[in-house]
Amino acid sequence: MTYNIDAIRADFPILSREVNGKPLVYLDSGASAQKPQVVIDAITQAYSMEYANVHRGLHHLSNLATEKYEAVRGTIARFLGVKDEEEIVFTSGTTEGINLVAYGWAMPHLQAGDEIILSVAEHHANIVPWHFLRERQGVVLKWVDVDANGDLDPQAVIDAMGPRTKLVALSHMSNVLGTVFDVKPVIDAAHARGIRVLIDGSQAAVHMPVNLDALGADFYAITGHKLYGPSGSGAIHIRREVMDEMRPFLGGGDMIREVTKDTVIYNDPPMKFEAGTPGIVQQIGLGVALDYMMGVGMENIAAHERHLTQYARQRLDGLNWLQVQGKSASKGAIFSFTIDGAGHPHDISTVLDKRGIAVRAGQHCAGPLMEHMGVNATCRASFGMYNTEAEIDALVDALELCHELFA
Amino acid sequence: MTYNIDAIRADFPILSREVNGKPLVYLDSGASAQKPQVVIDAITQAYSMEYANVHRGLHHLSNLATEKYEAVRGTIARFLGVKDEEEIVFTSGTTEGINLVAYGWAMPHLQAGDEIILSVAEHHANIVPWHFLRERQGVVLKWVDVDANGDLDPQAVIDAMGPRTKLVALSHMSNVLGTVFDVKPVIDAAHARGIRVLIDGSQAAVHMPVNLDALGADFYAITGHKLYGPSGSGAIHIRREVMDEMRPFLGGGDMIREVTKDTVIYNDPPMKFEAGTPGIVQQIGLGVALDYMMGVGMENIAAHERHLTQYARQRLDGLNWLQVQGKSASKGAIFSFTIDGAGHPHDISTVLDKRGIAVRAGQHCAGPLMEHMGVNATCRASFGMYNTEAEIDALVDALELCHELFA
Repeated sequence: MTYNIDAIRADFPILSREVNGKPLVYLDSGASAQKPQVVIDAITQAYSMEYANVHRGLHHLSNLATEKYEAVRGTIARFLGVKDEEEIVFTSGTTEGINLVAYGWAMPHLQAGDEIILSVAEHHANIVPWHFLRERQGVVLKWVDVDANGDLDPQAVIDAMGPRTKLVALSHMSNVLGTVFDVKPVIDAAHARGIRVLIDGSQAAVHMPVNLDALGADFYAITGHKLYGPSGSGAIHIRREVMDEMRPFLGGGDMIREVTKDTVIYNDPPMKFEAGTPGIVQQIGLGVALDYMMGVGMENIAAHERHLTQYARQRLDGLNWLQVQGKSASKGAIFSFTIDGAGHPHDISTVLDKRGIAVRAGQHCAGPLMEHMGVNATCRASFGMYNTEAEIDALVDALELCHELFA
Repeated sequence: MTYNIDAIRADFPILSREVNGKPLVYLDSGASAQKPQVVIDAITQAYSMEYANVHRGLHHLSNLATEKYEAVRGTIARFLGVKDEEEIVFTSGTTEGINLVAYGWAMPHLQAGDEIILSVAEHHANIVPWHFLRERQGVVLKWVDVDANGDLDPQAVIDAMGPRTKLVALSHMSNVLGTVFDVKPVIDAAHARGIRVLIDGSQAAVHMPVNLDALGADFYAITGHKLYGPSGSGAIHIRREVMDEMRPFLGGGDMIREVTKDTVIYNDPPMKFEAGTPGIVQQIGLGVALDYMMGVGMENIAAHERHLTQYARQRLDGLNWLQVQGKSASKGAIFSFTIDGAGHPHDISTVLDKRGIAVRAGQHCAGPLMEHMGVNATCRASFGMYNTEAEIDALVDALELCHELFA
């Protein structure tokens, strides 16, 4: 196997630390991923030797920082399979990206009674900005359920499209169920009806190769901190034709060409959508993280994680007192579960933590999905490129302990 | 003198590098400041040993990151003289902070014909969000000029207040002229008339002690990257009573208490205004930067910079072919200038860069002020806590060379 998991693990300094006297087993990458040394080194290098503000300077350091920063646009475009790097807008993460779409595109385009279609499995980042439009201008949210396996039937989304539907906003991969949603038929059907489509790629882009020029979504948001990059980094891909329909969102420096007392002339996209001093060093770090992932190979990462998913599924299915949410054939390496008769998932995660195992417990920013599944909360073990079978064994051992303790 | 400039300079690794074969003379801190080693180390430590997402986890690393991240709220409150740390909202910088006020407070409160008073010396970050309101809902922008010295007469601002005035938005220190504006009488007069006041503290908080509980502004925005902290860090202080008037701005995780298909219950402030995974490590780094500044002492930094300002003023005044913009008695360590008969400020900055001296040339995100001053662009030398008299001498030498070259 070409996938050298030991070498990869050695690239992430935090993975060699202990928690509560046990080796850290980090199964919370779905919340935020750890960072390889190359990313940390790039940040140190940027601040120690190459730092200045970007775009506005003509001196050496400013030019250097600008070159490194702007080069990341191309890296993101390559990572996402986008030909035109000017379709990449830098953001501080998916939340800012989706809010940019809500304020910059949807707010001026949607009238009272116009509809936005969402799946019930969306993350709050892809729900709350649309609730704003419901509260503030009478936009209607239409929800499509996932089935018992956690699959989203593309036809059910297509069937929900009506004459007032203006936008479909879907996750590419559920952060709770791990399901990869088959969004391509939805995008094609939406476009045939003049409907725009936003895809939340926060999870999908981490776990599988993504080719946006082939996918054709109008908006595709990613977040750097889940992509092994710095907190506060991210981007959104917006098709050029859709950029032209948008008004600016954040106002400030850089996004303007000229400002007088009476008028503003805005800059061309993508800078029209990037206001003020950006997350310079964060984006430089994100570029290094994506280069690192592409160096390992997205196909290789995906294959490694498919293997982990199969192994975890088999081990967890062996625990007949444990309920895994989401059994889709297209499930990725994210497992949410509850234990029959056990206490709150918070208690489970506390026991796991004592063994050095980091999982998340709660609603996972997915209130409507929790309601749909009829649970208040779950534990979630989410995997990344650096996880191993042995860590799945450690998880299962600790879950057996929980079962003993709480049953 | 207790101010150990050599020790301070040694704390900033980039200051020991060369540019174009000359020691770096960094006079562009007004655009973005350099970072002390303690900030860089804190970032490395956070990513190498203590990283996880905040707020949502119950495991060790998440708790650790949350504690460090949330502690910064108290550090910022201390730095700004704010008793109630829950009045501090984390942002990615001043631009996001002012947009939060524009979208969260002004947009729902202001009607067509309502007025916002601005000084002509505002930065685009404190102009463009208000132009949005002019373009989108007919709000009127009223401008108050600075005088020939670059001073803003508080009475002129007060005189501009009328029955339709809802907001005064002023810089605390001009990023072009260096003038510290006397905003306290404006705030008091505004409050007596029920008018809200936003102060852009991007520059002022870097150069002088600020006590917001005494100042009493409704909104006070700061930006971490100018405060020797990471790019993408920042905060805005909002008085509690004003927070209660605001609707949320960015929608996503963390800023909600409960989300269903039909409703949202928002979180309490300050989290109501903080959506999604925040700039975790950036804010941790900002806390370290502010602790570093407070360790040196804001009074000491201010005294050092007063000394630099006097020295620079005296040296630059000796160049009778050089025009400094802004001669206020309350001028801080920011000097914008043009050279009689010389080429574009861009050419000057290019010559300076050859000598390792970093200054900014252009409009400095202050279009209306440039128009008011009747110039297209200026060069700007902006100083920080680490600059020296010798660097001012180097600047003057290089300017003399420019004069020779271009005259």
